[in-house]
Amino acid sequence: MSPLEQTATATVDTALYSEVQNFYGHQMRLLDEAAVDDWANTFTEDGEFAADAHPEPSRGRTAIASGARQATSQLAAKGIQRRHWLGMLDVTGNSDGTIQARTYALILETPQGGKPSTQLSCTCDDLLVREAGRLLVRHRRVHRDDLPRS
Amino acid sequence: MSPLEQTATATVDTALYSEVQNFYGHQMRLLDEAAVDDWANTFTEDGEFAADAHPEPSRGRTAIASGARQATSQLAAKGIQRRHWLGMLDVTGNSDGTIQARTYALILETPQGGKPSTQLSCTCDDLLVREAGRLLVRHRRVHRDDLPRS
Amino acid sequence: MSPLEQTATATVDTALYSEVQNFYGHQMRLLDEAAVDDWANTFTEDGEFAADAHPEPSRGRTAIASGARQATSQLAAKGIQRRHWLGMLDVTGNSDGTIQARTYALILETPQGGKPSTQLSCTCDDLLVREAGRLLVRHRRVHRDDLPRS
Repeated sequence: MSPLEQTATATVDTALYSEVQNFYGHQMRLLDEAAVDDWANTFTEDGEFAADAHPEPSRGRTAIASGARQATSQLAAKGIQRRHWLGMLDVTGNSDGTIQARTYALILETPQGGKPSTQLSCTCDDLLVREAGRLLVRHRRVHRDDLPRS
Repeated sequence: MSPLEQTATATVDTALYSEVQNFYGHQMRLLDEAAVDDWANTFTEDGEFAADAHPEPSRGRTAIASGARQATSQLAAKGIQRRHWLGMLDVTGNSDGTIQARTYALILETPQGGKPSTQLSCTCDDLLVREAGRLLVRHRRVHRDDLPRS
Repeated sequence: MSPLEQTATATVDTALYSEVQNFYGHQMRLLDEAAVDDWANTFTEDGEFAADAHPEPSRGRTAIASGARQATSQLAAKGIQRRHWLGMLDVTGNSDGTIQARTYALILETPQGGKPSTQLSCTCDDLLVREAGRLLVRHRRVHRDDLPRS
């Protein structure tokens, strides 16, 4: 049995599934609406954000906030509203209490007075942990479908 | 703590979360498949539908059905299948029993024999209530990403 | 009361709803990442896959795997990453224990070094069954929005 098939047979924690969806709905809106410090606080203090389009991962909330601040400033200057859509969520609870959450991600951009366009299609692999009852991202890895897999 | 962050720490009612998703899956298909009276019945009798592209909100089921009938007739005449996708749902239960449900919304159109295109990217802020066990929209406010925020 | 409205008043099994979502997140990734045998195993042994773009339905896992193998080979040869997004799920449990799951489906394609584009907008009507605790597709019917309804 392949690892992918194994996951399919595992029991799904359906309450956790909805909680992760709600977390993403909340988290990505923080980024899209430029609440960059609140966004960074959805990662653990030592959280890591890796993307194959970036030379190095961002490590820690300060770095994650700083990267988001730069990106959102540039979009605001151009009058572009960006929206991150995560979907097709596949959740697996690990035995150590951490949570593996895999999604598809689309990045759409709408300029003032213009039409929306889909800029990127990606996969997003998260390791989530719970701290004081709250879900947080400990590690995120984003892969763009237009780039070769490393 | 900002209001957005406060929401993040609130406990999510995960059963309600799925129920709202199912409600939207059902509701928007009614509109997209031109069942306009059934669509209007997913709002409260005095339900309100506000969109920043409309000069005035539609108030009440009759007005909501009438607006939908006009829109769906025009699409049918042009041979266009419209699809509303709501996603990235963020649900908060209010202390008075009402429900705040925020989503991202995409409107796609596919002409007969043609390719789909994303016409609009929006946010949709709903106030939901429960009547006789059923979720209904008491107030919906749609904001288009291509228009300035008022 | 129309059949569509009737469904709306039915109680939603919210745990089942999340389980079906997780099933789709898992299932469609198997197809998109070319794990065609694992993909075929998400159908029942006698599963049926009908699409209005195909002259005949695929019947049984061997036929379903074979169709997927051909499609994924062609995409790989062209350097295209395809992604199936299912959303706007509407679930109804039938009295015989089978599950009716209706979704909207988008098919996106991203070429190496290029931009994503939405190739197709569809509806997907599934009849799901549970075997040894696992959800499986017994019957899938995909309708493309660009083709006339038969």
